[in-house]
Amino acid sequence: MRLSNYFMPTLKETPTEAQIVSHRLMLRAGMVRQASAGIYSWLPLGLRVLRKIEQIVREEQDRAGAQEVLMPTIQSADLWRESGRYDDYGKEMLRIVDRHNRDMLYGPTNEELITEIFRNSVKSYRDLPKNLYHIQWKFRDEVRPRFGVMRGREFLMKDAYSFDLDYDSAKTSYNKMFVAYLRTYARMGLKAIPMAADTGPIGGDLSHEFIILADTGESAIFCHNDYLESDVLAKDADYGGDLQAIVDSWTKLYAATDEKHDQAAFEAEVPEDKRVERRGIEVGHIFYFGDKYSKPLGAEVVTPDGKQAPVLMGSYGIGVSRLVGGIIEASHDENGIIWPESVAPYKVGLINLRAGDADCVNACDGAYASLNAAGVEVLYDDRDLGAGAKFAGMDLIGLPWQLVIGPRGLKNGVVELKNRKSGEREELTLNAAINKLAG
Amino acid sequence: MRLSNYFMPTLKETPTEAQIVSHRLMLRAGMVRQASAGIYSWLPLGLRVLRKIEQIVREEQDRAGAQEVLMPTIQSADLWRESGRYDDYGKEMLRIVDRHNRDMLYGPTNEELITEIFRNSVKSYRDLPKNLYHIQWKFRDEVRPRFGVMRGREFLMKDAYSFDLDYDSAKTSYNKMFVAYLRTYARMGLKAIPMAADTGPIGGDLSHEFIILADTGESAIFCHNDYLESDVLAKDADYGGDLQAIVDSWTKLYAATDEKHDQAAFEAEVPEDKRVERRGIEVGHIFYFGDKYSKPLGAEVVTPDGKQAPVLMGSYGIGVSRLVGGIIEASHDENGIIWPESVAPYKVGLINLRAGDADCVNACDGAYASLNAAGVEVLYDDRDLGAGAKFAGMDLIGLPWQLVIGPRGLKNGVVELKNRKSGEREELTLNAAINKLAG
Repeated sequence: MRLSNYFMPTLKETPTEAQIVSHRLMLRAGMVRQASAGIYSWLPLGLRVLRKIEQIVREEQDRAGAQEVLMPTIQSADLWRESGRYDDYGKEMLRIVDRHNRDMLYGPTNEELITEIFRNSVKSYRDLPKNLYHIQWKFRDEVRPRFGVMRGREFLMKDAYSFDLDYDSAKTSYNKMFVAYLRTYARMGLKAIPMAADTGPIGGDLSHEFIILADTGESAIFCHNDYLESDVLAKDADYGGDLQAIVDSWTKLYAATDEKHDQAAFEAEVPEDKRVERRGIEVGHIFYFGDKYSKPLGAEVVTPDGKQAPVLMGSYGIGVSRLVGGIIEASHDENGIIWPESVAPYKVGLINLRAGDADCVNACDGAYASLNAAGVEVLYDDRDLGAGAKFAGMDLIGLPWQLVIGPRGLKNGVVELKNRKSGEREELTLNAAINKLAG
Repeated sequence: MRLSNYFMPTLKETPTEAQIVSHRLMLRAGMVRQASAGIYSWLPLGLRVLRKIEQIVREEQDRAGAQEVLMPTIQSADLWRESGRYDDYGKEMLRIVDRHNRDMLYGPTNEELITEIFRNSVKSYRDLPKNLYHIQWKFRDEVRPRFGVMRGREFLMKDAYSFDLDYDSAKTSYNKMFVAYLRTYARMGLKAIPMAADTGPIGGDLSHEFIILADTGESAIFCHNDYLESDVLAKDADYGGDLQAIVDSWTKLYAATDEKHDQAAFEAEVPEDKRVERRGIEVGHIFYFGDKYSKPLGAEVVTPDGKQAPVLMGSYGIGVSRLVGGIIEASHDENGIIWPESVAPYKVGLINLRAGDADCVNACDGAYASLNAAGVEVLYDDRDLGAGAKFAGMDLIGLPWQLVIGPRGLKNGVVELKNRKSGEREELTLNAAINKLAG
């Protein structure tokens, strides 16, 4: 994409309404615009990141055996009356009355609807286990929406729901999602640590929040330092096999948010030099809740011995739009965003240092064509602007690589390749640069 | 995907609530389930089709130079008051009051919001032309939702908005979308004919509906038979060049829906043996409306001579979820759906005729692995069911190819390959079948 044509309305000023760095940078980089309080429009650059995150989530859900569906945003209130949550949910639920005076709502989550789909379709234990997920916009009418897409009202969430006949099978389903979540965040360049979370009246220990470390995080977190140094993807997951060992390795050491933190246990279990106290952002939550919804909604299957039993369910959420902000919180510097390559809107920013110079234009146009032909995503700054503005703009939007082509270098047969994260610059021939980026 | 594990709840009975064939077939094939009146959940098989259609729309929008954004579903009523449409829109608009008593609405369309984004970001004619589109769920509170996804309340629409400085440039933008629409529908195996549509108070001739022929269509249509025989994709589009000749070739002959039909003109312009009178379904609408929104909303740019002028806009809609039904209306037989390959949920249905037979299982498992490795999308009926049920099920869901492997054929070293559309069956070796499908 050529910047001369791209709709990327960057801002020079720091927007005053933005309290945290990811919100400021997303506005400044032209990734999003607020439509109304806590509701955002995604502009081209931001949408590309959102879609890449969504796709990683999708691939890892699919790999773990979950199947994608898509439930609507608007639901009937009747189902929520069946589960008893219509009255409980409070003001965060956006309630709507349609033209026929039926009570509707904008789904803040989908336990009821997926349970209804299940109960109408699946009748036998032979069709279990199942895990159905969707990636859909949700609405929670937060009283004070803030932090940009990190705590918006309309947000994109992946929510999966597992259905099993018995607890052991449900635990296997839970473990698959546990491991899928580790892989999902790792692929985004994030270190997300599972931390025990509330199970409410369900009890047991099958509830974990996945927390990434960031100074601007909403919760204090306490954990064993080994978790910060463990590599996730090295452990290849066989979803057909037993995943308990992986889950155990990520749950045996101390890790808790302030909600569940126990200072005495922390000090007893973790040697002093291994104690980490930081701040964190929740980017996912997995939760086993048994027959909490299947029972009131009557989602039963025939068991092997011919009886009827409510299915046992779990739910598994990932805040897809929130992750865009979360990744920026975890990965930026004073000049702007630093995208991990897997979620970067483009891999390469190509900078023409002198837009009026025929040699520069030729070299840049050629590099742009070669990189595109090699399947490398390039954002090409072909505008007639000063070098300083171009450098600052590229640093701001944080593409992993900057390929800088100017008249002086061309005379010596070289271009400059800069790594946004390390800041390292390298002079090399244009061909060598293209080969390196396409490799 | 193995059917033994797939969430595809097909129905044996024909659902009584479904009045038209696409609705019946989508329910029977387990593609969708109604969540509430006019609101559907997309199950895995249906979602795959929806996503393929969406992706074709996206690719052709991108090719034509439009840039993808994503606006939220929930909008503030204030903008619609600025444009004057808040009171005009009537009961089809789903109106919402949030917890702070602010008037909100579920966007039925996005002229206001995109105009606001534009006015806050673009200030100069130098940044024109622009075309921004998004593919997002909309809500129209139809008084009588019916025909399944063809006339639902919550529906997925692609809407693009062009911004130009003057009429000539706006017409160029219009022509690009006109041609992009021809290509889009052609890629889905549809013959969509552009028909002049109302321009309302704007006047001029820049308003076309794209109509596909189907016996169950909502409108009567009248057109010159040559349009049914013209090939669209043969004319390769150069979006940087002049597209007027292509547009002219698709507008010079008579084509009108009953709304705009003029029987005298039809008879005068079209020889009797070329007159086509059929029924049709609207699957897209493109419309130039000048400064209708930019003026009241103050979306102005600086012109080359230093003045301020409202931008001239057009909008371009495609009913993405409606197309799923529309394609089925246009392509089915008494046994079920006949998917064009470009939008088929899977390319191949692999049928194991004897699930208990080791040779059959081996051959089928091998074929499944080979086809997957070759990137061919396969739905594998590995269930322990009779041949009749498997054949009927595959015909119902309408995958383009059926690869049938049974004990008798294997003894002779052959399998059967059936083309769903033509019904032709061919006996060949398994390797030859795989090569043919992977080619």
